[in-house]
Amino acid sequence: MTDIAKRFKENPLLSPGNLPSSHPGLRIECLLNPGVFSYREKVWLLIRVAERPAQKEGFISFPILKPDGTMEILELEKDHPDIDLSDPRVTQYCGKSYLTTLSHLRLVSSDDGIHFSEPEPPVILTGKGALETFGIEDCRVARIGDAFYLTYSAVSENGVGIGMMSTRDWKDFERKGMIFLPHNKDGALFEEKLGDYYYALNRPSGVDIGGNFIWLSQSPDLKHWGNHQCILTTRKGMWDEQRIGAGASPIRTEKGWLEIYHGADRNNRYCLGAFLTDLNDPSKILARSESPIMEPIADYEKTGFFGNVVFTNGHLVDGDQVTIYYGASDEHICGATFSLNEILNSLTQLA
Amino acid sequence: MTDIAKRFKENPLLSPGNLPSSHPGLRIECLLNPGVFSYREKVWLLIRVAERPAQKEGFISFPILKPDGTMEILELEKDHPDIDLSDPRVTQYCGKSYLTTLSHLRLVSSDDGIHFSEPEPPVILTGKGALETFGIEDCRVARIGDAFYLTYSAVSENGVGIGMMSTRDWKDFERKGMIFLPHNKDGALFEEKLGDYYYALNRPSGVDIGGNFIWLSQSPDLKHWGNHQCILTTRKGMWDEQRIGAGASPIRTEKGWLEIYHGADRNNRYCLGAFLTDLNDPSKILARSESPIMEPIADYEKTGFFGNVVFTNGHLVDGDQVTIYYGASDEHICGATFSLNEILNSLTQLA
Repeated sequence: MTDIAKRFKENPLLSPGNLPSSHPGLRIECLLNPGVFSYREKVWLLIRVAERPAQKEGFISFPILKPDGTMEILELEKDHPDIDLSDPRVTQYCGKSYLTTLSHLRLVSSDDGIHFSEPEPPVILTGKGALETFGIEDCRVARIGDAFYLTYSAVSENGVGIGMMSTRDWKDFERKGMIFLPHNKDGALFEEKLGDYYYALNRPSGVDIGGNFIWLSQSPDLKHWGNHQCILTTRKGMWDEQRIGAGASPIRTEKGWLEIYHGADRNNRYCLGAFLTDLNDPSKILARSESPIMEPIADYEKTGFFGNVVFTNGHLVDGDQVTIYYGASDEHICGATFSLNEILNSLTQLA
Repeated sequence: MTDIAKRFKENPLLSPGNLPSSHPGLRIECLLNPGVFSYREKVWLLIRVAERPAQKEGFISFPILKPDGTMEILELEKDHPDIDLSDPRVTQYCGKSYLTTLSHLRLVSSDDGIHFSEPEPPVILTGKGALETFGIEDCRVARIGDAFYLTYSAVSENGVGIGMMSTRDWKDFERKGMIFLPHNKDGALFEEKLGDYYYALNRPSGVDIGGNFIWLSQSPDLKHWGNHQCILTTRKGMWDEQRIGAGASPIRTEKGWLEIYHGADRNNRYCLGAFLTDLNDPSKILARSESPIMEPIADYEKTGFFGNVVFTNGHLVDGDQVTIYYGASDEHICGATFSLNEILNSLTQLA
């Protein structure tokens, strides 16, 4: 056991019953994977809220958005000959794939980092247009200059890519379009320019050749990206053998950029680890976790909508203390702290 | 039968025996999928040349490049318990995928468009760096201003993405890095700016959700790309039900941008069709082929390294005549002509 996370004793901090659904006909199934930022002396979470209608016996039903913004409920017979319900997150039906829930992003804030509530009026960000009809998910929040940049999974029948929007006041949002093509998730921006370019971590997926690896991309303007490089791959037989993906923005330390990332094994058990890159050349990996720094071991991390998952895409850094907020079992939102130095000391040097 | 291609009577124009291999230990298995351009009053093809060593009984062997540029031959036992040889193009071995051949790009030219030969000295472009260790393939050549832009599949164990290089004289080449992340192929640049941006067609692939669809991306500088939009999807039960991908650069016509594309069905039978977009808004599809404009019907298109394939990524336009060069059965290079108006008239209006 190499888990060095100190979990909040108040965990879970937020569960599906703690927020109102966005529509009368829907109920919240999961609260998960929040983006995190501090603003006006509060801690803010931009939560992924996954909803669907109350389920009728013998049927599975879920909402999808139309490109014009209206919502439609699809209802499928569970005993249809061409349906696959084995993954609680995704349903295969007649050669097409659907998400079993529709996610939007919801803002909550806290004075103490433990007790969160919605602002008045609520801030609800939903999918828009043809590339977000299955919702938006797992938003990272990066602060660059005086603006916040939101990078999130944009899901539709066209695939899963990374969309971006920006805001300065959390009232007006500017949609920047899809910045990374399908299949891609886990887009995390560096919060400063390095030389002439902005940089982002992202996780495209290979088909036949390649895998679910972490790549580094550069941009002159945050909107257009190129010079893609593969910087971190999965490791056969290890806790991160099946897929890996960046958490939130890399943390600048004296030793390099520290990135907390998730890794899943062949059983879809999601743990957290970390890697360190060169400060001037973030494509150069200096050190990496051999063992997870956090594993799903608490009850609320082992059992839930999709069990055995700890997944983070948001943190706050205060001196040596890193506070992560994370999704547990794809159902609850929890918090934990790490010592930055303890993470750094736990890494295995590679270069 | 809706095939409106006029095949060259000299087909195939080039076969594996017609060029020398790039290394004494290798032999050419396939010549295919050339980029096409006119330059100094000649017709030029930038051919994909796929090589491997002579095969020993009971083994499959193929070359791979190391990131430092040296070549290594991998030799695998055909009766290994964890090998899958069912696809002649890709071998699965112990959880990893390898290409059965290593491809480079080779330049040939012709005065008459039929008889091609290599320049002296030969121009051979090979994979470079960690993202091209399995070779470079299927290069499109676009002319923008006084430069040629080469977009090609960059293949390595990290995945298949789209790389780019540019040249003005076909002697010095500037590598621009990977412009589209895995999994992506079939990158075709528009040969002029539309408004503030350059545009490219490309074909990312979905995992679980999405498919093998044609997307449109924009760029301020040809190197960094964003605002990705899905513009054309596969059609269930039709000739292009499984995957589609752009051919060469779109052709400007009075009616719109005409793109010749390939589509494959569930049996991996590759045909050609076309679609038309709005001249000012290339995300707007105006018309599309219901039936193929070209199908694998000649003997050399039906039988070969990978049979039942016609695949084009290069053409020349002269008034109403479009001359395509194409790969037949992934083994030979052939030529055919179309009437531009006949293609346009064959399309079904959508908008």
